[in-house]
This record gives sequence, structure tokens and C-alpha cells, in this order.
Amino acid sequence: MATILSVSGSPSDPSRTARLLRHLDTRLAERGHQVVPLDVRALPAPALLGADFGHPEIVRAREAFERADAVVVGTPVYKAAYSGVLKSLLDLLPQSVLAGKTVLPLATGGSAAHTLAVDYALRPVLSSMGADHIVQGAFVLDRHITVRDDGSVFLGEAADGLYRVLDAFAEAVAQAEAAKVSATI
Amino acid sequence: MATILSVSGSPSDPSRTARLLRHLDTRLAERGHQVVPLDVRALPAPALLGADFGHPEIVRAREAFERADAVVVGTPVYKAAYSGVLKSLLDLLPQSVLAGKTVLPLATGGSAAHTLAVDYALRPVLSSMGADHIVQGAFVLDRHITVRDDGSVFLGEAADGLYRVLDAFAEAVAQAEAAKVSATI
Amino acid sequence: MATILSVSGSPSDPSRTARLLRHLDTRLAERGHQVVPLDVRALPAPALLGADFGHPEIVRAREAFERADAVVVGTPVYKAAYSGVLKSLLDLLPQSVLAGKTVLPLATGGSAAHTLAVDYALRPVLSSMGADHIVQGAFVLDRHITVRDDGSVFLGEAADGLYRVLDAFAEAVAQAEAAKVSATI
Amino acid sequence: MATILSVSGSPSDPSRTARLLRHLDTRLAERGHQVVPLDVRALPAPALLGADFGHPEIVRAREAFERADAVVVGTPVYKAAYSGVLKSLLDLLPQSVLAGKTVLPLATGGSAAHTLAVDYALRPVLSSMGADHIVQGAFVLDRHITVRDDGSVFLGEAADGLYRVLDAFAEAVAQAEAAKVSATI
Repeated sequence: MATILSVSGSPSDPSRTARLLRHLDTRLAERGHQVVPLDVRALPAPALLGADFGHPEIVRAREAFERADAVVVGTPVYKAAYSGVLKSLLDLLPQSVLAGKTVLPLATGGSAAHTLAVDYALRPVLSSMGADHIVQGAFVLDRHITVRDDGSVFLGEAADGLYRVLDAFAEAVAQAEAAKVSATI
Repeated sequence: MATILSVSGSPSDPSRTARLLRHLDTRLAERGHQVVPLDVRALPAPALLGADFGHPEIVRAREAFERADAVVVGTPVYKAAYSGVLKSLLDLLPQSVLAGKTVLPLATGGSAAHTLAVDYALRPVLSSMGADHIVQGAFVLDRHITVRDDGSVFLGEAADGLYRVLDAFAEAVAQAEAAKVSATI
Repeated sequence: MATILSVSGSPSDPSRTARLLRHLDTRLAERGHQVVPLDVRALPAPALLGADFGHPEIVRAREAFERADAVVVGTPVYKAAYSGVLKSLLDLLPQSVLAGKTVLPLATGGSAAHTLAVDYALRPVLSSMGADHIVQGAFVLDRHITVRDDGSVFLGEAADGLYRVLDAFAEAVAQAEAAKVSATI
Repeated sequence: MATILSVSGSPSDPSRTARLLRHLDTRLAERGHQVVPLDVRALPAPALLGADFGHPEIVRAREAFERADAVVVGTPVYKAAYSGVLKSLLDLLPQSVLAGKTVLPLATGGSAAHTLAVDYALRPVLSSMGADHIVQGAFVLDRHITVRDDGSVFLGEAADGLYRVLDAFAEAVAQAEAAKVSATI
């Protein structure tokens, strides 16, 4: 069993991106992983924007990254890239905090024209943080994410592709765990 | 005479990036332009991170962008890209707020290895905001920015290259102004 | 009157990208500019791929770049970026060959998902070549480019957006020419 | 034992990039992998640049990709990105040819200022080709690659970092092989 940190980088509340991530968390938990949700929006804004590395909630967020075996990073696409909110948290983490970890990059947006933001904007940042294995990510159109009255999510035609990406991530996480175990025997 | 908005996207205080921008502001003012400084760090953090488009200080920042003929955008490089603080402000601006404007992208960083962050990270974001003319930018090594006790800045061997970039920007701003005038005659 | 080099980077023949560029050439010529077409595909392949800087046709291509006041660079999008054929020619040009020039980046592709290749892949390369002014570019969907039996092109719903981009480029070229003239008086 | 395709994308001959790759091949072979070298420069230029998918040598190159369990992709950095020669070959491969494979991106260049070309230019292209696992890559300064009279390579101060990257790649390849074996039992 691996510990997976699932980070939503949306500044909105309620947020389609956050709903999507919490929906995917359930599927990862069903595969036996322990999922830890983190909404960057819930962290104290002055600490995030003022580079306050020592604030207790920032320290807790950093420790959640350090303890995780794997990380899901989800963001809306604004201005052809990840959100400033998400990047504000990443800026406060140690340079190589993703070393030894498996990472899944996800983005949501209003137009297919923003698809490449995953690979040209988000992935290079995650790579610079030392990520061992950034699996194939996904871009999900806003209109494919239906939030029902009870808060649950219906993915429609985006479901198949997204679940395939999620399952490949879960598989990579499991392989990395198996390799760690065999290395310590 | 053009109005130039000069935006520092550093989360630190004092900040080498902010000092550098204020130093360059003087040179732009000497060429007859009106320079309006803006430190993203001074804006209210909860409004920036909470997508509070209507907050009076966010509205004022937006209006400063809209009124400007040209914009200098300066940021430290963290995790191979611009700061989250800077992006948080850009995320709150109208999609095409840079249409019709001349833009100068600047970045500071500890290692020459981050140089391409100007063209691969910052420039695409500014382009997505409709910028008419993004001139050649510059990456300045932290160790070339010496802040004296009185707050003034000494650029040493980086000065020549940076002033050349700044002068080309001032020239492009002047040309755009001349074109606007001749179009209205 | 400016001289505009119009470069097609498609490896195919016939090529939708090449047809599109030749169609746009006509519009630029109608505005009084002299347009010089260049198909990278017509250059000798061994010289392009073997870094043969001194081959007469490579020298002629380089001189066409050097003589131009402005350059249109068009490419199909393959594997999330510009074509290898186009890049092979760019690799043989002097590092700052685009200094002092106005540049229009254009890309064609089968899916809107490739749109950002213009700003994240092509633009940084053109910027590294010293381009003074890279105007807003365009991504055109293959299905919006209809080639008639006589070789002429019909753009359908893509026409308005593309002509707006082209006219803004022609305007920027004219302004740069005016500035050069006033500088020499 | 895995089969590793080791691709040099340099247009020059002799080439520092090619020498470096062949040097690293030896180390990979010593770890028990079968290494297949491929120099794009040796492929027929007209086929590469003319999109001649059916040329026998292009077919052989495609099959080498398809048969490989892992791929090393090495390129000099020109104009802030990978070489046109390398991209010309990638353009002729099936869209998802890297699916199920482990990939190591490497670049060489004259200045540390080009370092980010690995993550912002080369990595997104490899990701678009379906690569399962693109490990941390490396950028090697030309001046750290000394080619001796007998063609052997001395890496000096770059050796430690580069061998660490190479060993992490070899480890990832071995893990992927182990996972394939356990999946077929």
C-alpha cells in the first residue's frame, strides 16, 4: 500500500478541478492506496504568497509531500499554464521534494486548445523538482465534468481515457513500491 | 510619452528582483516615460489566492494594466519557471489584457541553467494574454545584482547586456506610441 | 515596401501548409510587400541534414533570411512541435539571423489539442534567433484548409481569425519600415 | 536483459554527442543490457526530409524503436532546442511508438544557458510519443566531453552527475523488465 498525496491547485470554491480530484481519490483508495487530499486554497494565503516557509500549515503541507510515495497534481489551466495558486505552494517546497516519487499531472480547462499546457508547462516544473517518474497525464475539458447535486462527479465521455491514465499511474505506484520492498529485503 | 507598468513578482521582501526593477524604472523615466511600479507582494494575499476579482486593490491593479501602454514583467525563477505570486496576479486579469501593449520579460535566478525559463515559461503566458509585442527579454544572475546599503543597485558585468535590452524595449515603446499618434491624425 | 520571406517547413508534397502560405503570400503582396517564397523541402536534403553550411543552396537560403525585413514561418505540427525539416534549416542559420526582423509564426494540425505548439515550441526557437518582434501567431486546423482543384485555397471559418493575424503582422512590418526610414533621415 | 536503443541526433561527423552516447552504451552493456546504437545522420537524408515512411532504412529504424524496451535520445542543443535531424526521424515514427518504454533524454551544448531545453523542448516531444517513463535527463557541457585520439571519451567533472542519471535509467529499465516478467507468469 502506498501513500498518495492528491493536490488540487484551484483558487475557486467550489471547484471543478477539486471535485474531479476527490472523485479520482476514491478510485485510487479502492485499489488499496491511502490517499491524502490537499487543497492549496485552504492554506493560509499570506504564508503562501509571502514565502513564509516556517508557517505551521506550510510545514505540514511540506511534510505531506515528503511522506508521500506518489503525488497527483491537479490544476485548472489559466493563461496557457497551471494556476498561480498551485505554483505558490510548489515554490515553498524543497527543490528535490519529488525525488523518488511517482507523479500524475492533471489539468482541466474550457478548450482543447489548452491541452499541451500539461506537457509544456506543468511537467517541466515537476521534473525540476526531481520527480522520479511523471506518468502520462491528462487534460479534461470542463464540460466533461458534471457535478451532481450531492457533489458526486459524472465524467461522461472523458471517463474511459481518464481512468486509463489513472490506472496506469496506480500501476506505476505499485511497481515502485514493489521495487522498494525488494531493495530492502 | 508612454505609461509603463513595472511589475515585480517576487514574494520576498527585500527582494533582489524588485530592487532591479526599481533601478531600471529610473532609466525608463529618464527617457521620458511615466513609470508606474507595482509589487505583487503588496497586494492582499487572500484576494490574490481566492480569485477575488472584485477586491478594490485587485481592481486597481487591473486598471493599472489596462491604462499602461507597456509593461515590464519581472520574476525570480523558482522550480524552472516564474513565481506563483506573479502568476496569481496574471490569473486575475482579463484574458487579453496585454493586447496592444509592448512587454518586456525579465527574470532573475541563481544559476545560468535557468535562463530559458524566460522564453519557455514566461513568454508563452504573456503571449496568451494577447501581448502585441514581447521584446527580447533578459535573465540576470543574482550574483550580478549588488544592492548597496542605500538600496541602490550596482549591476557590474550584467549592466551592458541588460541596458541594451531595456533600451530596445524603450525604443519599441516609442515606436508603438508614434504609430498610435499617426493612426489618429 | 518591405521584403517578406515566407518559409514553409512541411516535408510533404503537395502540402496543406505550403498551400496555405502561398495563399497568404498573395494577400501580403496586395498590401505592397515583396514576398519571397521558400519551401524547405526543395532544398538539398543531404546538405540540410549533414550540416553543410557552405552548400550553394543553403547559402542562398541564408542570404534570403538576411535580406528579408520580415519572415513568415509555417510548419505542420508533428509530435507536439514544429517539423524536423523546418528545424533542420533553422539549425544552419546564424544564431541571430532574425535580429531586427518581424516574424509571424504559423502552424497547421489535425487537432485543436496542438494549438499551444506555436507558443511553447516554435516561438522560443524564433526568440533564440534574436527576432525583434514575433507577432501573435495562429494555429489553423487542417480541416479548415480546403485546396481546390486549381490549387487555390478556401479557408472557411478560419479565414477571419487568420486574416486578422496576417493584417496585424503586415501592420507591424510597415511600422518597422517606417521606423527604419525615420532613423536614417 | 533489456534491449536499449541509443539514438544520436547530431548532424555532425565526428560528433561530440555521438561519442558521448557510444561511451554511455558501454556502461549500459556492462550492466547486462543489449544496446543498439543508431545515428540519425547515417540514415538517407532524402527519405528523412521527404517523409518517405516506406524507405527500407526508415522501416528498419522504426522497427528498432518498436523492438526496444528502452531508448536513449541524445541531441546537441541548437537554437534553444533539439536538432532538426533528430526531429526529422521522430516525425517519421508512429505517434505512440514510445508507449510501454523507458526513455532517457540527453543533450549537449556549449553553454549552461541551454540546460532547460531538455525539459521544455525534448521531454514534451517524447511525452507526446506515449513514453511510459521518461527518467530525469541530463545536459552536458561540450567542454566536459573530451574525446581522446583513440576516440574514447573522458567526462571529467561531468562524470559523476551523468553516471548517476545513467544508473537511475538502467535501474528503471530493470524494474520495468521485472514488472513485465511478473505480469506474464
